[in-house]
Amino acid sequence: MTKEPILDVAQLAHVEIYSTDLEGSVKFFREILGMEEAHREGNSVYMRAYEDFYHSTLIITAKDEAGLGHIAWRATSPQALERRVQALEELGQGIGWIDGDVGHGRAYQFQTPDGHKMEILWDVEYYQAPEDQKTPLLNRPQKRPARGVPVRRIDHVNLSASETNKNVEFLEEALGFKVRERILDGDDKDVAAWLSVTNLVHDIAIMGDPLGEKGRLHHICYWYGYPQHLADVADLLIEAGFKIESGPGKHGVTQANFLYVIEPGGNRVELFGDSGYQIFDPAWKTIEWKGTDLEHSVIWHGSSLPAEFFEYATPVRTKAPVENV
Amino acid sequence: MTKEPILDVAQLAHVEIYSTDLEGSVKFFREILGMEEAHREGNSVYMRAYEDFYHSTLIITAKDEAGLGHIAWRATSPQALERRVQALEELGQGIGWIDGDVGHGRAYQFQTPDGHKMEILWDVEYYQAPEDQKTPLLNRPQKRPARGVPVRRIDHVNLSASETNKNVEFLEEALGFKVRERILDGDDKDVAAWLSVTNLVHDIAIMGDPLGEKGRLHHICYWYGYPQHLADVADLLIEAGFKIESGPGKHGVTQANFLYVIEPGGNRVELFGDSGYQIFDPAWKTIEWKGTDLEHSVIWHGSSLPAEFFEYATPVRTKAPVENV
Amino acid sequence: MTKEPILDVAQLAHVEIYSTDLEGSVKFFREILGMEEAHREGNSVYMRAYEDFYHSTLIITAKDEAGLGHIAWRATSPQALERRVQALEELGQGIGWIDGDVGHGRAYQFQTPDGHKMEILWDVEYYQAPEDQKTPLLNRPQKRPARGVPVRRIDHVNLSASETNKNVEFLEEALGFKVRERILDGDDKDVAAWLSVTNLVHDIAIMGDPLGEKGRLHHICYWYGYPQHLADVADLLIEAGFKIESGPGKHGVTQANFLYVIEPGGNRVELFGDSGYQIFDPAWKTIEWKGTDLEHSVIWHGSSLPAEFFEYATPVRTKAPVENV
Amino acid sequence: MTKEPILDVAQLAHVEIYSTDLEGSVKFFREILGMEEAHREGNSVYMRAYEDFYHSTLIITAKDEAGLGHIAWRATSPQALERRVQALEELGQGIGWIDGDVGHGRAYQFQTPDGHKMEILWDVEYYQAPEDQKTPLLNRPQKRPARGVPVRRIDHVNLSASETNKNVEFLEEALGFKVRERILDGDDKDVAAWLSVTNLVHDIAIMGDPLGEKGRLHHICYWYGYPQHLADVADLLIEAGFKIESGPGKHGVTQANFLYVIEPGGNRVELFGDSGYQIFDPAWKTIEWKGTDLEHSVIWHGSSLPAEFFEYATPVRTKAPVENV
Repeated sequence: MTKEPILDVAQLAHVEIYSTDLEGSVKFFREILGMEEAHREGNSVYMRAYEDFYHSTLIITAKDEAGLGHIAWRATSPQALERRVQALEELGQGIGWIDGDVGHGRAYQFQTPDGHKMEILWDVEYYQAPEDQKTPLLNRPQKRPARGVPVRRIDHVNLSASETNKNVEFLEEALGFKVRERILDGDDKDVAAWLSVTNLVHDIAIMGDPLGEKGRLHHICYWYGYPQHLADVADLLIEAGFKIESGPGKHGVTQANFLYVIEPGGNRVELFGDSGYQIFDPAWKTIEWKGTDLEHSVIWHGSSLPAEFFEYATPVRTKAPVENV
Repeated sequence: MTKEPILDVAQLAHVEIYSTDLEGSVKFFREILGMEEAHREGNSVYMRAYEDFYHSTLIITAKDEAGLGHIAWRATSPQALERRVQALEELGQGIGWIDGDVGHGRAYQFQTPDGHKMEILWDVEYYQAPEDQKTPLLNRPQKRPARGVPVRRIDHVNLSASETNKNVEFLEEALGFKVRERILDGDDKDVAAWLSVTNLVHDIAIMGDPLGEKGRLHHICYWYGYPQHLADVADLLIEAGFKIESGPGKHGVTQANFLYVIEPGGNRVELFGDSGYQIFDPAWKTIEWKGTDLEHSVIWHGSSLPAEFFEYATPVRTKAPVENV
Repeated sequence: MTKEPILDVAQLAHVEIYSTDLEGSVKFFREILGMEEAHREGNSVYMRAYEDFYHSTLIITAKDEAGLGHIAWRATSPQALERRVQALEELGQGIGWIDGDVGHGRAYQFQTPDGHKMEILWDVEYYQAPEDQKTPLLNRPQKRPARGVPVRRIDHVNLSASETNKNVEFLEEALGFKVRERILDGDDKDVAAWLSVTNLVHDIAIMGDPLGEKGRLHHICYWYGYPQHLADVADLLIEAGFKIESGPGKHGVTQANFLYVIEPGGNRVELFGDSGYQIFDPAWKTIEWKGTDLEHSVIWHGSSLPAEFFEYATPVRTKAPVENV
Repeated sequence: MTKEPILDVAQLAHVEIYSTDLEGSVKFFREILGMEEAHREGNSVYMRAYEDFYHSTLIITAKDEAGLGHIAWRATSPQALERRVQALEELGQGIGWIDGDVGHGRAYQFQTPDGHKMEILWDVEYYQAPEDQKTPLLNRPQKRPARGVPVRRIDHVNLSASETNKNVEFLEEALGFKVRERILDGDDKDVAAWLSVTNLVHDIAIMGDPLGEKGRLHHICYWYGYPQHLADVADLLIEAGFKIESGPGKHGVTQANFLYVIEPGGNRVELFGDSGYQIFDPAWKTIEWKGTDLEHSVIWHGSSLPAEFFEYATPVRTKAPVENV
């Protein structure tokens, strides 16, 4: 009888990004994506989407370079948290406990082999809407904003890594992530992998960094759930002077209806326009894209991805000269 | 420290319904909803939607009365299956093991306090598309049918019960279901409850049977994921002579974009037109609708539900004369 | 050889409504429907939707009773204007020329047999976006607002009349409107009629007033063109405390995807969520709904219309006691 | 006082295309686009979409080369037909009267300066649905097909011309078309122009042929009206082995939500996924795209157009070697 699956991580709780233009970033997430500013402290602004149930899902911290601050995962129980901490310590990737931050209690920090900083936690603060923001739709934590084309909730994070497989295996072993889909090169090594602990196709993805850099952020993603909203927000973005990197279009991998744009602070943001497909099968066999099947992997239909998509990540690095690759 | 959650049930695997018009039912699911006939044996036809990964998710069995045959749940692992069987036996609701059926291996049968027959299993047969049905979209088990307005996958099942609370508690204790939302009467007793083991708001719902009957089926639900498809299928239904019971419209509870219709075999079918919202919070606090909040619970906007919706279930029973209620 | 059609009226140019709550009305059209305030003068506020090309399409004038101010039609040419003025004078329905108003030049005023005030004109002022509102989408007169769920353009107006046929015939003879669809009673008299001079199914509709009142307004309608926006604006309306009278739903007549709501000033507003169907046939034979066909005329699918829909019009009148009908 | 507009042409009635694979073409329009075969005669198959009101809107004729057979316009009245015939004769572009064809009566044939064959007519045969295809939606000529992703009606035709301006002017002078939008080169000459007699942005477009060929067809277009259907039909197309040339995406010019694909007979087909915007202004000032504004003209968002889009037309011609251009 095979080993039981690890079911100790429940979800992506929040992401911290570094911004080279804090007020520009806040304005972007607030005015275009309709997100709410929940709190400010030090160099950080805490934000959330209108169907995010916790205090905040996005922390934007002013810094001289864009990139990933950290990613927080919520455990399925206090006991599950303890088990994961033990596993992380055994793998030698642990950093240590912090007392907590705005919006959550104590958390255990660690890093991926590539150096992306993460934390796992149990205690969270729930968002409490002020009276004028309470909605009769009781399963919605606040009214839908009448501002921009408002995203509904955080969806996933996508990381660039100097070496894909090692980081994928770390997420599987340390946290119980399951690899839902992967793109393989001619040697059957991962070019990219999409992993989840939820029924979503991915809570996180790891893609090989073509510049060979470590610890970079490819993008964060917020969710609409309806294709029309990608067309709507595309109007706002273009008319506000933003250049859409790609989309709306549909990926083969994950079946995601996507749009990518670089926010003013330098980071790539994906907007997700439908529900993709969902995975309930507890014995899911990873979908493997390789060889001639790759034709339909990145783009199922619509927008193609520019070369920039495969190179740009944050912090921004000049592409290495050919002789150094 | 609180008890850990039971994470032993992964998903709804399939549902068997009884039909008083087997060929009419098959034609409905095939021609209007674009489902595939996977197998026929005895009095039963096995069907699936084009994004269902298993052999079949709907079994239609000819019978003199419409209603529920059985509901099958898939465990998260072989070990989880054994744990649930033990729990079911301890609760005295077990029936016993069967060797399997078309599309799956051995399964443990049991019943709810109200008498709805269920089974839990691990071994499943995956659908293998014939060559001409294979698609380059590798995460889709077969091509999208060019027939009717094709549903994508099974979504949930909704049961009528003579007494709601007892059956809800059984699902919580025996199988680890979490109550996501509930409608309460003036005495804070459940009028209806929506439960899940997945990130969906519900894999199953239990609603009080106003006729006081036991073990009836309120509806089964298949999923589109896109609102447009409810409008599209409404055209087909009306023009084929079907009466839409209600919808398209949007529930407050579950945020579901719904359409209800009675299939030719007598059972109510719901079609689900978006992704609703999803629950990733492992400590989800049940949404409770009662008192003045009820105004927005059943209908958030659009179609209202006719009285029939609250009375009609299968097997069909004449509403008891007033003096007997 | 039959008489040639009159092709002298091009379009609905603007509508003036009376509001018992001018600021409430302006806030509704501005904050929920994303319309722009173009001008204020005296007791009137001039507004337009972001894809309206003229100075304004809605004039809201403060008054002690809600209702219709006037409706303006634009002729297809200066010559066409003169021809229509002559026809109106011959029919004895003319009032006379005015020098113009904010947003347009001289106009000829007249009234329907029921007393609804109208005008026909040629000279219009085009909207000129300020620099920060110019969009690179050159066929759009200004940027899409990031406020509310913005409507795109004015669509049509719907009038209540004490007697339908006489007013319908007036529109045909005096202005060249074609009756696209009609609902007939048992005596083949119009219960309601939908007329247009454009390819839209209706620029104007006339419905019998069940209270026998003269000159009332049933509703004005603004256009979205996409079904999703009806669901989006429904969220905003409900959460802002408005009661949606009906919708989203789909009419059989006109195939309109509709939502109806009463604006704070007392008038009914329809929001139109798709393109319906269009009529290009120059010899269109009026669609006639009567007898058993009526079942699908008002509602094709979705929301039903409450009794209020057939009685409420502005100015608001108490329903006459049965003996007086 | 300026000259009155010519209002003598009502609409695009039908288009004949030549196919190098008649049965392949018929299967494509029937199985994927859900169109109906109305009639067969000689080497031609007559087809229509389910909301086309006439006998047929597409004639597919077997031929050794793909391309345009002819385009038929319906006049606004018998008198208007006579006036246009006289104008065509005066311009020296007339060919002469034919007695009629399947689906319509006598028609006057003529050609554009570039040699595209056209006809103008008044008498048409209306489609009469057989009993089992009648729908209770009386403004729809037949039931919505449960086959493929069915298009609703013919929308427009797009021609390649050796010289744009001369052909555009011909359509204006001879038939009363209005130029709604145009793309201009550095010398303010038309690169392409979009013209209509209806409220649609275009019933016909003329684009410069980069190969300098005469009389070629760029594409025909059928209309969905809903963006979702482009995503739906994209699934069918890809899984049936078709290569989508471009789309779904959104043009700046015309605001069209588009998808382009080459049908088996060799001709390009556009599918139109929303209502674009509409033009009711009788004094519409042509939108001119040139210089830096061109960036947003072809693609507003989504799919880009491949080089092939600007070169491929039917009949297919090898691109001339550079020295001959």
